[in-house]
Amino acid sequence: MKRPLEGITVLEFSQYLAGPYAGLRLADLGARVIKIERPVKGDACRQLATKNMWSDGDSVLFHTINRNKESFTANLKNTEDVATVKTLIAHADVITHNFRPGIMLRLGLDFESVKAINPSIVYGEVSGYGEVGPWKDKPGQDLLAQSVSGLTWMSGNDESAPTPFGIAVADMICGTHLAQGLLAALVQQKRKGIGAKVSVSLLESILDFQFEGFTEFLNSGKLPKRSAIANAHPYLGAPYGIYQTADSAIAISMGDLAVLCESSGLKGMTDFYSTETQYENRDHIKARLVEHFKTQTTTVWLEILSPLNYWCSSVLGYEQLTQHDAYKILEMEQTLKRGENSSITTTRCPIRINGRKLHSATPAPVIGSANEQLIKEFNL
Amino acid sequence: MKRPLEGITVLEFSQYLAGPYAGLRLADLGARVIKIERPVKGDACRQLATKNMWSDGDSVLFHTINRNKESFTANLKNTEDVATVKTLIAHADVITHNFRPGIMLRLGLDFESVKAINPSIVYGEVSGYGEVGPWKDKPGQDLLAQSVSGLTWMSGNDESAPTPFGIAVADMICGTHLAQGLLAALVQQKRKGIGAKVSVSLLESILDFQFEGFTEFLNSGKLPKRSAIANAHPYLGAPYGIYQTADSAIAISMGDLAVLCESSGLKGMTDFYSTETQYENRDHIKARLVEHFKTQTTTVWLEILSPLNYWCSSVLGYEQLTQHDAYKILEMEQTLKRGENSSITTTRCPIRINGRKLHSATPAPVIGSANEQLIKEFNL
Repeated sequence: MKRPLEGITVLEFSQYLAGPYAGLRLADLGARVIKIERPVKGDACRQLATKNMWSDGDSVLFHTINRNKESFTANLKNTEDVATVKTLIAHADVITHNFRPGIMLRLGLDFESVKAINPSIVYGEVSGYGEVGPWKDKPGQDLLAQSVSGLTWMSGNDESAPTPFGIAVADMICGTHLAQGLLAALVQQKRKGIGAKVSVSLLESILDFQFEGFTEFLNSGKLPKRSAIANAHPYLGAPYGIYQTADSAIAISMGDLAVLCESSGLKGMTDFYSTETQYENRDHIKARLVEHFKTQTTTVWLEILSPLNYWCSSVLGYEQLTQHDAYKILEMEQTLKRGENSSITTTRCPIRINGRKLHSATPAPVIGSANEQLIKEFNL
Repeated sequence: MKRPLEGITVLEFSQYLAGPYAGLRLADLGARVIKIERPVKGDACRQLATKNMWSDGDSVLFHTINRNKESFTANLKNTEDVATVKTLIAHADVITHNFRPGIMLRLGLDFESVKAINPSIVYGEVSGYGEVGPWKDKPGQDLLAQSVSGLTWMSGNDESAPTPFGIAVADMICGTHLAQGLLAALVQQKRKGIGAKVSVSLLESILDFQFEGFTEFLNSGKLPKRSAIANAHPYLGAPYGIYQTADSAIAISMGDLAVLCESSGLKGMTDFYSTETQYENRDHIKARLVEHFKTQTTTVWLEILSPLNYWCSSVLGYEQLTQHDAYKILEMEQTLKRGENSSITTTRCPIRINGRKLHSATPAPVIGSANEQLIKEFNL
């Protein structure tokens, strides 16, 4: 089966996480993605090792986000290399970058210059906080974007310090928005033959991500307030949350509190059976539930609640999840060989096309490994 | 200016959050999105009020995610209505649904049946955990998907209970993946005239979202471990985290620990200046930083660290953010009038096209408000 983006060529000047995450998805869906990297060091993400984890001299993080791409090295401070890159641009459908505002203009690779070479180009750019304004030079880093966006007041309990999401969520969501914008512009390019510039930023993306709570704030002026106990969403009432049980934990979603209490034997809760009272009294209700759920194992609670279709679940770690048949049937893993004695196992594309799971056998590229091929192919 | 998806028609059978979030983005980018809703009650999300917030009888959540859409009512258990819907499908480019596995087949609206009406249709479907396997009937709800995915072991400190992200992150990220898949298939449709089925699930999406940590686990077998203090990312060493100051808090990102300590006057840290030691010793380093940052206000620390280009930031809530010029210049807000005396303020599309911010004046639709117009337009 052909993939939907087969025949589309993307030049990725982007480094680190947000831009390359968009490129990864386009590659998963069939595009040819060529990373344009500076000689020797390449994408700075190659050196960004979390937990000191490396594979073949590049960080594991770099490997996970650059699978299925090619690498072409060019020194963008060298006019000859810029000319070569411009020849590649003439053959591309999409380019992306996340340089600071002004850099691409200096290199002669801003949208207007690129459009002069290739009028139907789709030009994607990522910034931290937009190209203008007091934060235009603030580092576009995930934790900082989370911290200014209000997001750190959503997780953890009410008395906790500001609690960031323990994942680079601003980068990730911004990368998904970039991919959306690029793809929408590609639809237009294929229909009408015209190009477009697509701009995203960590801050705009992480605000969109919060639109539910943010909209409530904009209309009521009320700040999100985490529940004192078992907070799982500052705008939802009890019992919504995760509770410790006699052996592990249980997630309790929305549902009829009467069903929950009556079936599991929690008395004295009838005052709260009406949903209208379950937000303002959430700490009181949750305190009762904390004591209650401690008295039995997760299995016992699930055996009581699941047959009643009460929305609840065990709480798993990676170890338990990956041993579960419900995980195995997804075939989420793929192992990429990188040279004779080296391989890395990572996830596949989360999107299935015509029922087919999209695996890809190509690992992240060695710096400049596509130079020879591209020079020949495009007569560079 | 025209938007990139102008002329594209989407029929949205999806309810709640994930599917409609994809539809919202397509609408933002110029598509005509028509919600197909059951009579009277409509999309179940209309009744899903967080924090008991309502506007004109619909939940604020519904309003935020369905701006800029039309509504057509149809009873899919009625053959006449199904025939009408099929006429609409013949004129559409995309349809999406999030019914449980099997339902669309029973209604005669599965991919094969729809393809018989419209061979180039792009057909999007959302499930909780895939269409097969032991969890195919498990409720596809955000907190439950988070709980089985391992995500609850990323945020909060090491001794904390499993800590969910305080936002419907599985829904949101799954919706962004759906939009990506639909758009990639639209690119193919416009190039080659063929359709595709695009399938996503909360679980596959929330695993992709964790690919960094998950890949580390798959290769090393080591589980994520939150730091005991100021955790902000279980795979990153000190000083990465948020710290209380004399008056508020400060976010401290990656950077040279020597610069941080020397400039701010923290002694006795030279043993940790080498980055190799900063993961295994993170709790010790962070404990020192906790005491240190308490001694001055955030402003004082920022005045010391920012000129040295150390990546750091104040930590804001919605109130402080929305008063900041760096926020105001983004023009993220838009106010939608809904009838004479009712309006709602919400966010705009986070993606800019050709430098233009995409606002949209149309609020979420009243149930069935497009019936008359569509009946006339398509001779239903």
